[in-house]
Amino acid sequence: MSIENAKKQAGYAAVDQNLDPSDRIIGVGSGSTIVYVVERLGQLNTKNDLICIPTSFQAKQLIVENSLRLGSVDEFTEIDIAFDGADEIDSNLNLIKGGGACLFQEKLVASCAKRFIVVADYRKNTGLLGKDWRNGVPIEVNPLAYKKVIKGLMEIGGKPALREAGASKAGPVVTDNGNFVIDCDFGEVPSNQVQSLDAKLHSLVGVLETGLFVGMAKKAYIGEEDGSLTISKKSSKL
Amino acid sequence: MSIENAKKQAGYAAVDQNLDPSDRIIGVGSGSTIVYVVERLGQLNTKNDLICIPTSFQAKQLIVENSLRLGSVDEFTEIDIAFDGADEIDSNLNLIKGGGACLFQEKLVASCAKRFIVVADYRKNTGLLGKDWRNGVPIEVNPLAYKKVIKGLMEIGGKPALREAGASKAGPVVTDNGNFVIDCDFGEVPSNQVQSLDAKLHSLVGVLETGLFVGMAKKAYIGEEDGSLTISKKSSKL
Repeated sequence: MSIENAKKQAGYAAVDQNLDPSDRIIGVGSGSTIVYVVERLGQLNTKNDLICIPTSFQAKQLIVENSLRLGSVDEFTEIDIAFDGADEIDSNLNLIKGGGACLFQEKLVASCAKRFIVVADYRKNTGLLGKDWRNGVPIEVNPLAYKKVIKGLMEIGGKPALREAGASKAGPVVTDNGNFVIDCDFGEVPSNQVQSLDAKLHSLVGVLETGLFVGMAKKAYIGEEDGSLTISKKSSKL
Repeated sequence: MSIENAKKQAGYAAVDQNLDPSDRIIGVGSGSTIVYVVERLGQLNTKNDLICIPTSFQAKQLIVENSLRLGSVDEFTEIDIAFDGADEIDSNLNLIKGGGACLFQEKLVASCAKRFIVVADYRKNTGLLGKDWRNGVPIEVNPLAYKKVIKGLMEIGGKPALREAGASKAGPVVTDNGNFVIDCDFGEVPSNQVQSLDAKLHSLVGVLETGLFVGMAKKAYIGEEDGSLTISKKSSKL
């Protein structure tokens, strides 16, 4: 089964098994798996009563393209259910997110959601943060502070790198919020140390948000290589 | 003695008693007392070798007006000495800052400084944060997150208010960094609880920085009402 099919299977199943008839306000994550979530939401929006809250410019486009109504997170701080991808998922459903540089709005929307459902393909479900995702933890920082934050990250044992835009733009990536992203490798981060690492990162002046999502996800829908679907809840497989 | 004279006395004395001949990189705070600090720095810059790092647009203007050389905090992350005002000062030299909405850059520059010296008039030296400064703790937030942060602040017992611009602009104040400011009243905050309150505020998604400066100031120069000068160090008067 292709990666693309794994993503589609996870995205469709997550919506079908979790969207309640009473759900109206839906958080929409970013990334390649979310494409299938929004496609499915569009198919099920027969009463035209779903309002979707985007986590990025990409999410906004997906919502509009699928003829869903657009809302914003400063309009609706109570979100019935949110769906999002992940770069890595540990055995307690802690996540690394931010490979697409959308971590701040993603975390904001997830924090507003009563239920937060993760969708991903099998490569992301490593059981331990930092195991396969060796880019490190994405950290969104105010541009003025990037040098000082890099210094602070080295002092706590990380290997930070300012994310470059590559061929598309000279210099660093600029997020949808006008900030920079620093990717910081901390090696493998055991589940019981993710929260304290996140707090340490937040204590650095200039950090708006980190890509560590601790205790936020209720379930993860993982499309497997063999075509099957794994549904994880905290510390237990269903 | 007028408030203005108290400010001038504190500003001049702080510079005269703390600027070492080897100091080159100087952090420049914001506010009405800093005007006198920069005036004095300009007078002492006879070799034209001081480089000043601003904490706001106002500070940048003061530096230029006093013919000092302008640097930036992403150029110099090691600052020899920084001077800044405060809205309230407790007995351990913890501060509330941000009345002028410049708290983020102020905290960034203070965090880069080897020595951080506070200058203020007597009204700010209350010994306890939240005692006289009843506007509350200024918190700089991303505009998308302001509603969710207000909700989170109420949940931890604060009384938050989005800072309005008043007659100068319709709607909320926008900071030099494009963000909003929420002022949150927590009543009086004992010295030993300032750090944990700051950490709680940082855990709210969307908070870039808070106006609580914990353990950063080395000394405070307070211009008194009777024309005298009080110099405070942590937990002890000199």
